[in-house]
Amino acid sequence: MINVGIVGGTGYTGAELLRLLAGHPQAQATVITSRAEQGRAVADLYPSLRGHCDLKFTAPEIEQLLDCDVVFFATPHGVAQSMMGTLIDGGAKVIDLSADFRIRDVPTWEKWYAQQHQCPELVDLAVYGLPELNRSKIRDAQLVACPGCYPTSVEIGFMPLLEQELVDPRSLIASSASGVSGAGRQAKIDFLFAEMNDNFRAYGVNGHRHLPEIEQGLRDIQNGRGEPACLTFVPHLLPTIRGIHSSLYGTLVAGADVDLQHLFEERFHDEPFVDVLPVGMLPQTRWVKGTNKIQVAVCRPQNRDTVVVLVAEDNLTKGASGQAIQNMNIMFGFDETLSLSAPAL
Amino acid sequence: MINVGIVGGTGYTGAELLRLLAGHPQAQATVITSRAEQGRAVADLYPSLRGHCDLKFTAPEIEQLLDCDVVFFATPHGVAQSMMGTLIDGGAKVIDLSADFRIRDVPTWEKWYAQQHQCPELVDLAVYGLPELNRSKIRDAQLVACPGCYPTSVEIGFMPLLEQELVDPRSLIASSASGVSGAGRQAKIDFLFAEMNDNFRAYGVNGHRHLPEIEQGLRDIQNGRGEPACLTFVPHLLPTIRGIHSSLYGTLVAGADVDLQHLFEERFHDEPFVDVLPVGMLPQTRWVKGTNKIQVAVCRPQNRDTVVVLVAEDNLTKGASGQAIQNMNIMFGFDETLSLSAPAL
Amino acid sequence: MINVGIVGGTGYTGAELLRLLAGHPQAQATVITSRAEQGRAVADLYPSLRGHCDLKFTAPEIEQLLDCDVVFFATPHGVAQSMMGTLIDGGAKVIDLSADFRIRDVPTWEKWYAQQHQCPELVDLAVYGLPELNRSKIRDAQLVACPGCYPTSVEIGFMPLLEQELVDPRSLIASSASGVSGAGRQAKIDFLFAEMNDNFRAYGVNGHRHLPEIEQGLRDIQNGRGEPACLTFVPHLLPTIRGIHSSLYGTLVAGADVDLQHLFEERFHDEPFVDVLPVGMLPQTRWVKGTNKIQVAVCRPQNRDTVVVLVAEDNLTKGASGQAIQNMNIMFGFDETLSLSAPAL
Amino acid sequence: MINVGIVGGTGYTGAELLRLLAGHPQAQATVITSRAEQGRAVADLYPSLRGHCDLKFTAPEIEQLLDCDVVFFATPHGVAQSMMGTLIDGGAKVIDLSADFRIRDVPTWEKWYAQQHQCPELVDLAVYGLPELNRSKIRDAQLVACPGCYPTSVEIGFMPLLEQELVDPRSLIASSASGVSGAGRQAKIDFLFAEMNDNFRAYGVNGHRHLPEIEQGLRDIQNGRGEPACLTFVPHLLPTIRGIHSSLYGTLVAGADVDLQHLFEERFHDEPFVDVLPVGMLPQTRWVKGTNKIQVAVCRPQNRDTVVVLVAEDNLTKGASGQAIQNMNIMFGFDETLSLSAPAL
Repeated sequence: MINVGIVGGTGYTGAELLRLLAGHPQAQATVITSRAEQGRAVADLYPSLRGHCDLKFTAPEIEQLLDCDVVFFATPHGVAQSMMGTLIDGGAKVIDLSADFRIRDVPTWEKWYAQQHQCPELVDLAVYGLPELNRSKIRDAQLVACPGCYPTSVEIGFMPLLEQELVDPRSLIASSASGVSGAGRQAKIDFLFAEMNDNFRAYGVNGHRHLPEIEQGLRDIQNGRGEPACLTFVPHLLPTIRGIHSSLYGTLVAGADVDLQHLFEERFHDEPFVDVLPVGMLPQTRWVKGTNKIQVAVCRPQNRDTVVVLVAEDNLTKGASGQAIQNMNIMFGFDETLSLSAPAL
Repeated sequence: MINVGIVGGTGYTGAELLRLLAGHPQAQATVITSRAEQGRAVADLYPSLRGHCDLKFTAPEIEQLLDCDVVFFATPHGVAQSMMGTLIDGGAKVIDLSADFRIRDVPTWEKWYAQQHQCPELVDLAVYGLPELNRSKIRDAQLVACPGCYPTSVEIGFMPLLEQELVDPRSLIASSASGVSGAGRQAKIDFLFAEMNDNFRAYGVNGHRHLPEIEQGLRDIQNGRGEPACLTFVPHLLPTIRGIHSSLYGTLVAGADVDLQHLFEERFHDEPFVDVLPVGMLPQTRWVKGTNKIQVAVCRPQNRDTVVVLVAEDNLTKGASGQAIQNMNIMFGFDETLSLSAPAL
Repeated sequence: MINVGIVGGTGYTGAELLRLLAGHPQAQATVITSRAEQGRAVADLYPSLRGHCDLKFTAPEIEQLLDCDVVFFATPHGVAQSMMGTLIDGGAKVIDLSADFRIRDVPTWEKWYAQQHQCPELVDLAVYGLPELNRSKIRDAQLVACPGCYPTSVEIGFMPLLEQELVDPRSLIASSASGVSGAGRQAKIDFLFAEMNDNFRAYGVNGHRHLPEIEQGLRDIQNGRGEPACLTFVPHLLPTIRGIHSSLYGTLVAGADVDLQHLFEERFHDEPFVDVLPVGMLPQTRWVKGTNKIQVAVCRPQNRDTVVVLVAEDNLTKGASGQAIQNMNIMFGFDETLSLSAPAL
Repeated sequence: MINVGIVGGTGYTGAELLRLLAGHPQAQATVITSRAEQGRAVADLYPSLRGHCDLKFTAPEIEQLLDCDVVFFATPHGVAQSMMGTLIDGGAKVIDLSADFRIRDVPTWEKWYAQQHQCPELVDLAVYGLPELNRSKIRDAQLVACPGCYPTSVEIGFMPLLEQELVDPRSLIASSASGVSGAGRQAKIDFLFAEMNDNFRAYGVNGHRHLPEIEQGLRDIQNGRGEPACLTFVPHLLPTIRGIHSSLYGTLVAGADVDLQHLFEERFHDEPFVDVLPVGMLPQTRWVKGTNKIQVAVCRPQNRDTVVVLVAEDNLTKGASGQAIQNMNIMFGFDETLSLSAPAL
């Protein structure tokens, strides 16, 4: 049984970590920090955890965290950077759910996040925690940067096509939609029920922070093959709490004559959480709600040159805390599916 | 054509006033104030009003408001009090949608709203703007205190029963449910989509501010008949934007042998906005959404001694801004239904 | 590991049984029947079970069911009756989620369900499967009649008050609200998204089939103490998929001077699934979603004579399939919480 | 005041026609037909119309319809065809909301709708009722084929780009999402609240019936300019009742150096219902709910070669019944905005 520390436990990803750890046979949360809620019982803030979690929020203290076998950051960007040097020097294993260490090019990070990076020297230490791409590196990592919710869905969806150089990488399109929990547990007018319900809208069309992360991820998948991937990324807000659905569009290169269904099934055959749906079935966000599953379908409408990949995941699970637990399972040599195998409601 | 001023136009009731006034043939909004949004176009904050409203928010100035034929307050409690003396002295007609002048007993108001009343001398001037009870007084009023959203539904529902002394007034029960817009347009965690959706809960069981208002209203209806009404009031939050539904329970007095359906139909026969449903049909909040209608059904299950009255209204329309316009129409001698006759979506 | 048969697996309670059994360490589904979907893979109808369930629907055959250690009926009323004689004679243990054996008075059952009972001689064999009331009888039962969703919430909520004779049993009120899945997976216009969303309404005011079941349950709780309980029961439909919330009202008898909070905490102290909330916290349906928990709060507003009990449960879990599994765990001597301990999303 | 007949009044588009006609100063519904609901009061089926509509459903009779000034068909495809010959011969003006006369190439219609066309000789008589494209033809039309909901949003969104030959017409993409009312008022499991809520999914990827209609519309817009438009069309289902949002993607042709915002504003400057949003504002379905408005925004992310057009409309209003009324207003020389000018809730 390993001990887990969580920095920043009051948001939705922190609560999701606690929910998943409650059923983990080899790991237990022992420290959970929050300056704002210091001293308050976790189950008081999240009554769904009554009977499952006896912890109280504490102020973050390095010593306590260094006593843990692994430390998760479920914090807004900027926070993990401020503590990372000490933790890494102290030998801690760290899984960061925030954006702090996802982008390897520091000036790009600083441009999109509009602040100076506080420990650029540690960026190269971080492994991008997408198991479907980097499983072996994750196994030996000290610092894992968990992918963002949208990036997970877009990168996995395009993965087989880019690996096989079947689509023109310069004109990829991702039309994605996310449930509101993706915006976090912050009191903003825009995310009120009365603003969001019975509504649908795009946002961030001219530049969402996940764009540079996704393009880096797509290029990592390309691994030098062909022109560097360029993506048009349009996120939308869904009137649901959880769930991401990405509709991906690519132009097949001339002569691409391949059984796309077979290609996808083969590529993900051994992946425990990627479910390539049979022909005729399309992903639905409710089928993966609360699970670490990601459902994928590939189509070629009218047999024309545009390939369509549809992807559904739970933004808080495979898109955040579930994938973080998956990374932990890999890092500690556990069965990769521990605590991640319950079916959706 | 009369000129209308609106103080506090950035909330949901302010926007609803503008929506209804956009279709009013005899009244037009000419001033709308907001300190926070001063200088901003109304249609920029509420894009649904693009093409319907050219106004900009201004800081509240007494002179501008005195130039209007009528001033609406769509503000949190406490604000109308601070300007009311000057407006009344200046001869303005005022319709206050807030709670400032609803309760005639000043110490009761001060206890429930936890602040000192700023112009207790004007409280007696105010007419409680429930047309079904006070139409003739409203006609001549200078200051109308619009009823709260819950009180409107509970008072109208119990009205025929209390007038006829058919129920024991000491043990009335109202189990009410409201859409989230009732909480106003304020950035609070509790009213986030991710907290409210797919959820239902009671709140304020031990004392909601509408309780003393409702009990005063019920006693006004009693008008000295029988023991003073006492109510158990349990409000709930619905995962909808608009709509209030009240399920009312009363114990029929011994010997009450009356055709309840007929009683209700007769009582509200001439009321333009009270729709007593035929036997077998029960109110639904969607049937009144966006309208000033209030639907009522009365039942006596198993022919036992408990009478059940079901009431549905739109909390922002008949429960607030629609009723305010209805009051304005009465005060200015217009057809009472002007701008209030469109059917629900 | 025991083998489980499920008759009628295509509805929501059947799917919920499969979801819960997927995580049960001592029980596995081996037979699932559906005439309509015969031959189809379960995971094809419920893609959330892909990877969790390899079964196909089969036509119901008595021999196959008799090979199981326990048989669940997740069928509309009338179906279990038609097969029960043979199963009971064959020695099968049966847990019936339908209404067929809940009501002991056969004429009452026949009146409310508008059909003749097909095996009235077996009604007395059935134990009403509310563990909080009948745990020891369930342990030895061959046939368990699982309580309805509304009855579970109302009976548990009134339990301590009736046991202690603290409320007048002749004038109890239950104002309940249920998510739409309570109506089952049937193609009716009334339950379309476009009819239900953003809406709230009462129904069945003049007589819901759960009324006689609840009154029988309340009288069982009374166990001969005082006048027989009479209930006014008003169910409502919520725009949510899952969840039941019951707001219960009772009149305290003269001289009832008891610490209600303490009474409820004591009564349910050893119940693994009844969570009496601390003072100041009220139940929310989302806090119990997908779990077998039932949350209860008791209040006495304004210290008057009306006591209010608020109850939240998941209608498909504690209100149906979860409670059925709980009954199975009791019947087979398993830990009562097996497969029922995951926290809510 | 003209008299309006509606064939097939029990669906959502029929009810929406009645809602809009209730506020029309120059037109009134006088006949509404439904075989299934014959003899039933309209307000009984649609209680939101209580007090607004005294009509009863009647069986469709040609004579009654010929007495009307205009006849709307709000029927499933196939129905209008069966009566059209007689009506046209009798001199009736007809506005068909169904798909029967939208597609000029009869074999294409027959292939996609999987039935034989019953009056191919009338297809050329029909004018495609998109006022932004065909206003002058509509003015003189006897038979108007109202565009589908998705086609309206996609055709208007691409209109300025295709007219100016700014995008490659061979690789257009429309990622659209519709509220559930688009599926009509039919009792299907797929459209139950419990299946649709808190969910998002694509459907019809391999061929939606609106695809050939949209491609015909886009080519009409092209009017012979460039290669014929080819579209990849992926519709999705939203957990809302009303609303369509289309996210359109096109590749700018080499050298396309134009102020897209200015182009769109100019193109739709005189269109009463097309609202080109200012830079920085993106369409939201709630802003157009219940209105005939269509909101459009155009963006060029990262200044790359992909242009993104975002469009929001109400599928039942501008996407169906509102546009039908707009066509009627044009045909009869009324102000085009009559009964269509109320702002959204």
